[in-house]
Amino acid sequence: MSEAAQTLDGWYVLHDFRTIDWTAWNAASPAEREEARSALFALVNEWEAVEERKEGSLALYAIVGQKADLVFMHLRETLQELNAVENKFNRSAFAKFTKPAYSYVSVVELSNYMGQPGVDPMQVPEIVARLKPILPKTEHICFYPMNKRRLLGDNWYMLPMEDRKAMMRSHGMIGRSYAGKVKQIISGSVGFDDWEWGVTLFSDDSLQFKKLVYEMRFDEVSARYGEFGAFYVGNRLTHDSLAELLK
Amino acid sequence: MSEAAQTLDGWYVLHDFRTIDWTAWNAASPAEREEARSALFALVNEWEAVEERKEGSLALYAIVGQKADLVFMHLRETLQELNAVENKFNRSAFAKFTKPAYSYVSVVELSNYMGQPGVDPMQVPEIVARLKPILPKTEHICFYPMNKRRLLGDNWYMLPMEDRKAMMRSHGMIGRSYAGKVKQIISGSVGFDDWEWGVTLFSDDSLQFKKLVYEMRFDEVSARYGEFGAFYVGNRLTHDSLAELLK
Amino acid sequence: MSEAAQTLDGWYVLHDFRTIDWTAWNAASPAEREEARSALFALVNEWEAVEERKEGSLALYAIVGQKADLVFMHLRETLQELNAVENKFNRSAFAKFTKPAYSYVSVVELSNYMGQPGVDPMQVPEIVARLKPILPKTEHICFYPMNKRRLLGDNWYMLPMEDRKAMMRSHGMIGRSYAGKVKQIISGSVGFDDWEWGVTLFSDDSLQFKKLVYEMRFDEVSARYGEFGAFYVGNRLTHDSLAELLK
Amino acid sequence: MSEAAQTLDGWYVLHDFRTIDWTAWNAASPAEREEARSALFALVNEWEAVEERKEGSLALYAIVGQKADLVFMHLRETLQELNAVENKFNRSAFAKFTKPAYSYVSVVELSNYMGQPGVDPMQVPEIVARLKPILPKTEHICFYPMNKRRLLGDNWYMLPMEDRKAMMRSHGMIGRSYAGKVKQIISGSVGFDDWEWGVTLFSDDSLQFKKLVYEMRFDEVSARYGEFGAFYVGNRLTHDSLAELLK
Amino acid sequence: MSEAAQTLDGWYVLHDFRTIDWTAWNAASPAEREEARSALFALVNEWEAVEERKEGSLALYAIVGQKADLVFMHLRETLQELNAVENKFNRSAFAKFTKPAYSYVSVVELSNYMGQPGVDPMQVPEIVARLKPILPKTEHICFYPMNKRRLLGDNWYMLPMEDRKAMMRSHGMIGRSYAGKVKQIISGSVGFDDWEWGVTLFSDDSLQFKKLVYEMRFDEVSARYGEFGAFYVGNRLTHDSLAELLK
Repeated sequence: MSEAAQTLDGWYVLHDFRTIDWTAWNAASPAEREEARSALFALVNEWEAVEERKEGSLALYAIVGQKADLVFMHLRETLQELNAVENKFNRSAFAKFTKPAYSYVSVVELSNYMGQPGVDPMQVPEIVARLKPILPKTEHICFYPMNKRRLLGDNWYMLPMEDRKAMMRSHGMIGRSYAGKVKQIISGSVGFDDWEWGVTLFSDDSLQFKKLVYEMRFDEVSARYGEFGAFYVGNRLTHDSLAELLK
Repeated sequence: MSEAAQTLDGWYVLHDFRTIDWTAWNAASPAEREEARSALFALVNEWEAVEERKEGSLALYAIVGQKADLVFMHLRETLQELNAVENKFNRSAFAKFTKPAYSYVSVVELSNYMGQPGVDPMQVPEIVARLKPILPKTEHICFYPMNKRRLLGDNWYMLPMEDRKAMMRSHGMIGRSYAGKVKQIISGSVGFDDWEWGVTLFSDDSLQFKKLVYEMRFDEVSARYGEFGAFYVGNRLTHDSLAELLK
Repeated sequence: MSEAAQTLDGWYVLHDFRTIDWTAWNAASPAEREEARSALFALVNEWEAVEERKEGSLALYAIVGQKADLVFMHLRETLQELNAVENKFNRSAFAKFTKPAYSYVSVVELSNYMGQPGVDPMQVPEIVARLKPILPKTEHICFYPMNKRRLLGDNWYMLPMEDRKAMMRSHGMIGRSYAGKVKQIISGSVGFDDWEWGVTLFSDDSLQFKKLVYEMRFDEVSARYGEFGAFYVGNRLTHDSLAELLK
Repeated sequence: MSEAAQTLDGWYVLHDFRTIDWTAWNAASPAEREEARSALFALVNEWEAVEERKEGSLALYAIVGQKADLVFMHLRETLQELNAVENKFNRSAFAKFTKPAYSYVSVVELSNYMGQPGVDPMQVPEIVARLKPILPKTEHICFYPMNKRRLLGDNWYMLPMEDRKAMMRSHGMIGRSYAGKVKQIISGSVGFDDWEWGVTLFSDDSLQFKKLVYEMRFDEVSARYGEFGAFYVGNRLTHDSLAELLK
Repeated sequence: MSEAAQTLDGWYVLHDFRTIDWTAWNAASPAEREEARSALFALVNEWEAVEERKEGSLALYAIVGQKADLVFMHLRETLQELNAVENKFNRSAFAKFTKPAYSYVSVVELSNYMGQPGVDPMQVPEIVARLKPILPKTEHICFYPMNKRRLLGDNWYMLPMEDRKAMMRSHGMIGRSYAGKVKQIISGSVGFDDWEWGVTLFSDDSLQFKKLVYEMRFDEVSARYGEFGAFYVGNRLTHDSLAELLK
């Protein structure tokens, strides 16, 4: 494979956005709601046990606005495991109170633009940890998919490797200036979903999402070459706040 | 952060557009309708009390045309509070008579293009008041989201700060020429929703929305760099006109 | 306001496209259908009385194809009146047999490109009549929304006033060559709806819509600067043909 | 009217694509299905009688894939007749087992690019027959709508008549090389529907659709100036195969 | 036909994506579910028998994410047979538990860019086998539709045959470097569906889809001329895993 296209790939990712059917929920009997709640908590417990065994990870957030009510971000070793997670949810007693809102399939990815010559990245422990990450438990999440543009004079994929590398370095430096404030997980979805990458940001201060994405927008790699899909922003759901939401 | 990307940020904003399910409403019993009305008025009263305590603000308008019937524009200190507002609405007895129509998540924003060198904007009381505003009670509202264009030769984010500042000044002067006729609230949504900004206009004369937006369209910053989403226009709902709508 | 952006504005317009729920209609009892028909005719009578008092106007047509079954084109002095018209329809016994299909909010507009220097257009009786028109009762209607393009080298809003004026004059001359065959109502929707203008054509010969729009497409103002939305074409509904449709 | 915009226009056309609601169909009682089938065959017989009287024409095909199950292509002298055809279908006992999928309104058209100077095309019998055609009964149908592009340097409507004529001649020669294999009906929809033309192809060999459209794509008039909508391909429904489909 | 447009065409293809209506499935009685399962397995058995007789082929996969739950990829000699396959599915007891999600109609195709001068490709047994292929039984599938771009300076269809041939050769060499890892089936859909080609990839290692598509994206034929639709990725459903999914 050409140097240009080398990436390091880790766990598969499913962002599973769901809308609650509030009319059905409000009309349900207390017993039905209790059954649905129990089923959901059983799943969440199971997924958290997977995370504890370091065989995957889960982020669970409430989305703000009408695009969705919940996002389950699942990480697993294989696509089959992600399919099994979906199917178990769909067969559960909670599923009938939800409607699909959006989903995204990708794989945690580290690009080779950051690579040091002569260094095998799989020997760098920090890199290995980033490919199979335990997701942060921050107060807020932000997700959006993106492409690199291929439009007439602004065509990322026709640029020399040198130029792309230089632009990505400058881009990465903005990201690093948010270290401690925003943690980002980049996942590649070429061949898996409708955009080329998914970006998931985690922060305890939701304003940092806006600052980071806006500052990057002036960077040539975003300004000229970035194409962005829908943005989703949410608040962390602990067991307690999830119970509160569905009380 | 680079000078180019500095903004001042205030309250979070949720524009919550809802369509009334008229078939369900017309088919409901008088008692069901009364219960729904009471639930809605209880929420409105609660939200107005928040405004009175200056912990947020509410604008409530009836949208003209089929895009929606109602818009609730909520301002709050945090995203969690906005989520709580949504959820309380969804759990209310009025919710089953509505369907989600559109929503927009943003944060009240003042750009730094207007800043005077050497002046700390947070020391300017008018600016602080504009970041956490009590929404006007005008007869009409107009909302639309927008982007600054990044398209080949017309790329806002590749322009020098100087040029952007000059264009924004000229743009702002058109806005100021409508002082007393139109009040505008700009909210930033980079990282929060699908466009970069939301614009909410308030006026007692709905024709002023058309005049203002049309005049600005000839300004280079809109003509070359503005991309606009859907426009929503509406009439104020007082307690009386809301009761009339749902009688 | 700059000369470039001056327009004359008249009555507000709501194009209200509705689809009939034929499955519900066919399944209804004769009594339910009779109740719905009566409710609809009561509304139409009321709206025609408004027209008679010259406080508004109504055009009622059956749309060809699946985009909609009916269009109600309402003209009123204010947005509040348009909202009241919508709400009365939604509360009627006919509404449950319809589904919203599309709507468009605008205001009857005359551009200043045609203006004579030194002449106050509001002193020209023909102009005043055109701003608050009684809609024609022709056999056919055609509606479409449109924008003036702002795309790189083809940017209407960056052209000098002189050039726009010259192009609009040539454009208007094509329109005038259809005098007696097609009557057009231009309504502005900047700030009100998703396109900048709505165009409503009336003719007794539906082929004239095609001839007019096609001929204009070769005119530079359309060829380079016109962007067009969906087109709707319909047949006039008299009381008799409306009764026949719903018999 | 300028020479550039002259066309010859014949019968109006409605392409009426319908999806069968298989869940409702499978759940219906044998008597309900029999009633629906009878209603549909009564309509088809009526429409075939219209064709026999040369007052219109019908093509009835089963669409492959999920876009639709059936297409009824109706030709009539007026838009009112097309509306009547739709409404009669919607009032029939078969309608409740279908859902609208897509429709297209146009008028059979011959462009003037092919015209011979000094010849009145309405005196050419072949031309008259092509304007009010009895639709072929081939095994397969292909339908797609299209525009001529108006995009910066590639703007069909800004080209001199000479250039357009030359390109259309070359284009027509490809079409003629398929004589005997593919019959095409071009219908104009400027002012009637969302694209400028509808193209309907008929052939006993469905592969010829691909060969023809693909070969034309390399022709400058398609390559630079063609914009294409959705493609629909189908198999002829005789009375027997229609009965088989709904048995 | 011009050399540029020559292709070799084999079996027709229907990609039939279906979503399971989990609410209906979970609410069904064990007997109803058993009946639906039996109906589905009867169809699958029948389709596998067609494959055994080499009269067609079937690939059956579970799609990851919310776009669909299942994809049935059917190959048949004629469009009529594909229609019959669809209809039989729609009439089955399993159909009511599914909703259409997406479909794609095409025909297996080999382009002439690879052709050797003086060689009749239909005499090359490998080519004939590729036109009527028995689909691989790999662990994973990837499907996406695509166009060659026709946009101003980047117009594939305006390039000389020589240039296209050279670019396709280089493109093909990337594909060949994945031999043994990814098997691709290209099917042409010009005249049949909304994109020009469908690409179906088969692999036991889903990461190879990403590597292949990403590497190709830097190739000029994709970078400048490729336009891509939605991507679907899935896991193979054997009889056992299908039974497990629907248990």
